[in-house]
Amino acid sequence: MAGNTFGVLFRVTTFGESHGPSIGCIIDGCPAGLVIDEDFIQREMIRRRPGQSAIVTQRREADIVRIYSGVFEGRTTGAPITLLIANEDQRPRDYEHLSDAFRPSHADYTYWAKYGHRDPRGGGRSSARETAARVAAGAVAKLLLRQYGIEIQAYVSQVGPWILEKPYTELNLSLAETNEVRCPDPAIAEQMIHFIHQVRERGDTVGGVITGIIRGCPPGLGEPVFDKLHADLGKAMLSINAVKGFEYGSGFASAAMLGSQHNDAFIAEGDQIRTQTNYSGGIQGGISNGMDIYFRVAFKPVATLLRDQPTINTAKAPTIIQGRGRHDPCVVPRAVPIVEAMAALVVADHLLRAKALQSANSLHR
Amino acid sequence: MAGNTFGVLFRVTTFGESHGPSIGCIIDGCPAGLVIDEDFIQREMIRRRPGQSAIVTQRREADIVRIYSGVFEGRTTGAPITLLIANEDQRPRDYEHLSDAFRPSHADYTYWAKYGHRDPRGGGRSSARETAARVAAGAVAKLLLRQYGIEIQAYVSQVGPWILEKPYTELNLSLAETNEVRCPDPAIAEQMIHFIHQVRERGDTVGGVITGIIRGCPPGLGEPVFDKLHADLGKAMLSINAVKGFEYGSGFASAAMLGSQHNDAFIAEGDQIRTQTNYSGGIQGGISNGMDIYFRVAFKPVATLLRDQPTINTAKAPTIIQGRGRHDPCVVPRAVPIVEAMAALVVADHLLRAKALQSANSLHR
Amino acid sequence: MAGNTFGVLFRVTTFGESHGPSIGCIIDGCPAGLVIDEDFIQREMIRRRPGQSAIVTQRREADIVRIYSGVFEGRTTGAPITLLIANEDQRPRDYEHLSDAFRPSHADYTYWAKYGHRDPRGGGRSSARETAARVAAGAVAKLLLRQYGIEIQAYVSQVGPWILEKPYTELNLSLAETNEVRCPDPAIAEQMIHFIHQVRERGDTVGGVITGIIRGCPPGLGEPVFDKLHADLGKAMLSINAVKGFEYGSGFASAAMLGSQHNDAFIAEGDQIRTQTNYSGGIQGGISNGMDIYFRVAFKPVATLLRDQPTINTAKAPTIIQGRGRHDPCVVPRAVPIVEAMAALVVADHLLRAKALQSANSLHR
Amino acid sequence: MAGNTFGVLFRVTTFGESHGPSIGCIIDGCPAGLVIDEDFIQREMIRRRPGQSAIVTQRREADIVRIYSGVFEGRTTGAPITLLIANEDQRPRDYEHLSDAFRPSHADYTYWAKYGHRDPRGGGRSSARETAARVAAGAVAKLLLRQYGIEIQAYVSQVGPWILEKPYTELNLSLAETNEVRCPDPAIAEQMIHFIHQVRERGDTVGGVITGIIRGCPPGLGEPVFDKLHADLGKAMLSINAVKGFEYGSGFASAAMLGSQHNDAFIAEGDQIRTQTNYSGGIQGGISNGMDIYFRVAFKPVATLLRDQPTINTAKAPTIIQGRGRHDPCVVPRAVPIVEAMAALVVADHLLRAKALQSANSLHR
Repeated sequence: MAGNTFGVLFRVTTFGESHGPSIGCIIDGCPAGLVIDEDFIQREMIRRRPGQSAIVTQRREADIVRIYSGVFEGRTTGAPITLLIANEDQRPRDYEHLSDAFRPSHADYTYWAKYGHRDPRGGGRSSARETAARVAAGAVAKLLLRQYGIEIQAYVSQVGPWILEKPYTELNLSLAETNEVRCPDPAIAEQMIHFIHQVRERGDTVGGVITGIIRGCPPGLGEPVFDKLHADLGKAMLSINAVKGFEYGSGFASAAMLGSQHNDAFIAEGDQIRTQTNYSGGIQGGISNGMDIYFRVAFKPVATLLRDQPTINTAKAPTIIQGRGRHDPCVVPRAVPIVEAMAALVVADHLLRAKALQSANSLHR
Repeated sequence: MAGNTFGVLFRVTTFGESHGPSIGCIIDGCPAGLVIDEDFIQREMIRRRPGQSAIVTQRREADIVRIYSGVFEGRTTGAPITLLIANEDQRPRDYEHLSDAFRPSHADYTYWAKYGHRDPRGGGRSSARETAARVAAGAVAKLLLRQYGIEIQAYVSQVGPWILEKPYTELNLSLAETNEVRCPDPAIAEQMIHFIHQVRERGDTVGGVITGIIRGCPPGLGEPVFDKLHADLGKAMLSINAVKGFEYGSGFASAAMLGSQHNDAFIAEGDQIRTQTNYSGGIQGGISNGMDIYFRVAFKPVATLLRDQPTINTAKAPTIIQGRGRHDPCVVPRAVPIVEAMAALVVADHLLRAKALQSANSLHR
Repeated sequence: MAGNTFGVLFRVTTFGESHGPSIGCIIDGCPAGLVIDEDFIQREMIRRRPGQSAIVTQRREADIVRIYSGVFEGRTTGAPITLLIANEDQRPRDYEHLSDAFRPSHADYTYWAKYGHRDPRGGGRSSARETAARVAAGAVAKLLLRQYGIEIQAYVSQVGPWILEKPYTELNLSLAETNEVRCPDPAIAEQMIHFIHQVRERGDTVGGVITGIIRGCPPGLGEPVFDKLHADLGKAMLSINAVKGFEYGSGFASAAMLGSQHNDAFIAEGDQIRTQTNYSGGIQGGISNGMDIYFRVAFKPVATLLRDQPTINTAKAPTIIQGRGRHDPCVVPRAVPIVEAMAALVVADHLLRAKALQSANSLHR
Repeated sequence: MAGNTFGVLFRVTTFGESHGPSIGCIIDGCPAGLVIDEDFIQREMIRRRPGQSAIVTQRREADIVRIYSGVFEGRTTGAPITLLIANEDQRPRDYEHLSDAFRPSHADYTYWAKYGHRDPRGGGRSSARETAARVAAGAVAKLLLRQYGIEIQAYVSQVGPWILEKPYTELNLSLAETNEVRCPDPAIAEQMIHFIHQVRERGDTVGGVITGIIRGCPPGLGEPVFDKLHADLGKAMLSINAVKGFEYGSGFASAAMLGSQHNDAFIAEGDQIRTQTNYSGGIQGGISNGMDIYFRVAFKPVATLLRDQPTINTAKAPTIIQGRGRHDPCVVPRAVPIVEAMAALVVADHLLRAKALQSANSLHR
């Protein structure tokens, strides 16, 4: 099975390459009657769009989402929702010089090995352009989740050596969208931006980390034993270009902890069951427990450099990749809405999966 | 969709609770004609089995795998393969005292919230007992992968504060199975074992990290854009009990790196294309590139302590969980074969998925 | 993907061959809290069991269903439900003489071509023995459907030349289970039974038709455009051994009808919307409309004859199949509970699928 | 799970309503390197197009297929293939008068019951317009199957009372496309055409039957026990608008046959294994045996009449549907390419599914 579909009940298939007329997606399984706020979708697209600030790629894509099916008079009909985004700024000439060389740490070689061809125009499906379709689909998922009081937010918590150590609970997250790097600590944000400028001047790139939080998730989402909520979240994040790692709750730090430190004590608050600490990250046994879900996603530095790099070509002969084109020196600021979108797709899917069984459960009790 | 099935073409469904007569699994999609080495399966079971050394739980389960279907005269037939493992040492009385209290950082509360009942006998599907079925299925996957020259090995690289910093390429991995903690560095292994003994004496538990390596994977496995090879590996690992994080290749460390450091240069070695470094971890654009695949998996400390802990019960009233029962002070030594099994399931599945398309591809060229 | 799983949300995987210790199934996705009436399951098994009357095969199988997982104190837990049925009467010697010859109109040749082996002991997965697992799973589905007031009944409407022409609405269906052939018209039933005896005496077999009815299905089940309710019903029926055709509502007869004859006029009965006629068979546009769903399933004559038949073997040499063994002269009486079981699996699955979306829909209105 | 996706490995998702800008489909899982003959795709579209002759609807749709993704320089790339077909002749005013009345034997009521809205403009997803996307996808599948020597042809074998009794083996099938009704017997074709004209003059409609043949299918396609080749073919056909029945090989007629008549004797022809007769319809035990696969599909009369019909509306009040609009008096001539397309999708999918396992099988022997 080819792998361009994500989700079981809320199910998204993305399509399109940068050299075609459009990219886009189909959402199959969105409940009928949901009000589609097109302005909201568009605002999400703008958050991911290239050229939005000085620290991201200067390619220009208007990224206007056009709804081709599944919405009638502003509401979903239950039919597949098709979202198209035209490719306006293709500029294939920028990539022509690459033609048969394998760019280091890109997907050129593996696509060639798998599919038997070398996309000469810089990307095809491995291009981050594909993530625009994810943001569009994720915006629809967010609209659905809002109906249930579930909100998702992500922010940049590391760029190269600059790390935001404070936990999300001690931050004013409303500040995240007030600066170019989407870091909610203004002082660290400034350092990150400065660092990105330096890196770009050297023709280099740098990695980073994004932290995500899901609030308002009811208890009961997640399907043991394989489709645990955090397992599907992890897969969703790892499917984003350049992601190298995922952790939730206490994450890798838990490896050094003792059980007596790590256990989250249950308490009752009125009618609600909560935990005093939240090392579990809102998920226990693969199922949401009603506390905040939080996670971290590691991004490697972008592989395209504005420097010459040695490599080989399809004939296995040595050659040089010249550093040209318009690329992001650091991908994480633009990846924030992508992380949110993928999280929204996972939660929307598990919400419907839980509802299929819960409504039946209730009958028997 | 309930979540007890893993894989698309090589497809495993596990079933069973500790309080029933058996646990087990069905493998649907294993090619016909594969020789099934039952001794090998059994040896894998023994690696996961409780009671195998002083640093793991002293529960006793013989964990004999019995083949109920799909194998005839020692070879797979193409029919579903059913593997059953009897529950010999159920001892429900050990768990009776728990009945309606939610054990901290266990799945008691979330299962209750989701399914409307409280398993009074310690585990049901959230028990690590379920992973025995994974090891059995993974052993079959390993036998299939061997036919293609693919080998998988995992080892313990961290227990609490004791970290094996050396990369796997500088270790003698054959030493991993020579000590109780499955760490290939004998000196560090000794410290880890000592530490686990200390932790146990205090009635406490500790987390750890397992490193996994997949060797001999041909280029071309992994299905963009969502079913990237590392995304499915990540999901597989995160679906194991107590796992809190996953990273592959350069992982979280890549967030602090520059592109000029991180890019892996391609070189030709005879007929083969390789990379000089392997920060990519054997996967580029979600597709294997023929280099070693390596990854790390973080485990939290086991939630069951031999200490009393305050909690609440289903009536939301405060109560005390007493520390009793037989549990692992550190799960990682026994989780090594589980990590290997899940990796084997992912690679076997992607191998078949790639073959479906490659054999067709070859026709057209 | 191997094909031993049926359903999307209420999902059944069957396993096992007649030469192994057991056959059985796993049901994944049954809601928690459903009371499991084991006596009911067993009565369904008895309806399918060989040896129940003089007109069916005299093989003896006790067909006791044992629950291995997913049920606790008489209720489903939400975990996978495993049902095992021991093989008691294997008698492999009956089949030994077949070993390398391809029995005419059996699956011997196609299994050999597909899997590369020739099951020497009468069937493996192609044996109708596999359908015992379907009946067990279907019994659980029926218990679920009962909670929603949905009932399924099937009966024999043709055996060879003997055809029950009356529509089901003019029959007393409670008579169906009062005779060996499961035909609700006692006079025709007698003719059918007499005919089957004649056929058996000649060492021959005969085909038949089963009619099925689903009552109480609420409007809204079925997922356009591919997973139409009748499309999934059709697939379910066609997956039963020996089935050659499926029709619902007006079926093949509609090909000769005019639209002005065939259209079902809508009427309001109190708060309910109904149709005056029901050529639609309770399904319009692939979605149930609340009227009775009815369908017919054609079975070919059993391929095993008590006569010698010429054939070839795996070496492509001519040989003779001798007529021996114990087989059904007519499969339809025993296939009635199988038809019901498969219908129950389809409706249970679509009920959960509809619930996933409906509960969300309701929020928005 | 919503139901707009068909297939496991060769996987098609259709989208779009007649009132949007386009309809179309995504094919995910087509092998890379396949030459895409756009003229062939277009010719298939023309075969289904309205307005092609006097006996079909006079709506006009150019039905030009535009490839949006997945094809580069005339070959598939392995990425999802997106095909769009613009809606040129929407004319919503034709349908305005229907708005809140339920047209008899249409999907108006069931869509309203399921999704909570009443598409006022003639159909949405339940419109036969959706099948244009199936024909486009099926054309790609046919191009793939041709590489393996597999050809699919369908023709009209019944229109109302006019039945083509001869088996396909005694017909000159090349004549099917030489007349408006697509019946390969010119004399009967003339009667059918004449009958359709009569029916249309009366403002009525009539049903029919299509026979399909798949030639060149290798042995081994089909996945027991649920995804039998004929079960998936049956589902595919039943998912087409207006289909009420499916049979393959001897079909419903087998119910009246004896085993001694029905069994197909195996013979060796050189290196090939064949059967002397083919009541099995090319499939045994759910797996292709290398003989021709043939089947019949029953279509009810179109529900839209050019006559007034009584009905009720969403308020459950009686009302009259006026007979207006442009519709087919008989759907079967235009449904021939749809039947072929769905058959092609099924065989392409099973071809890839078989290859996933066969290439592995071959390793072990």
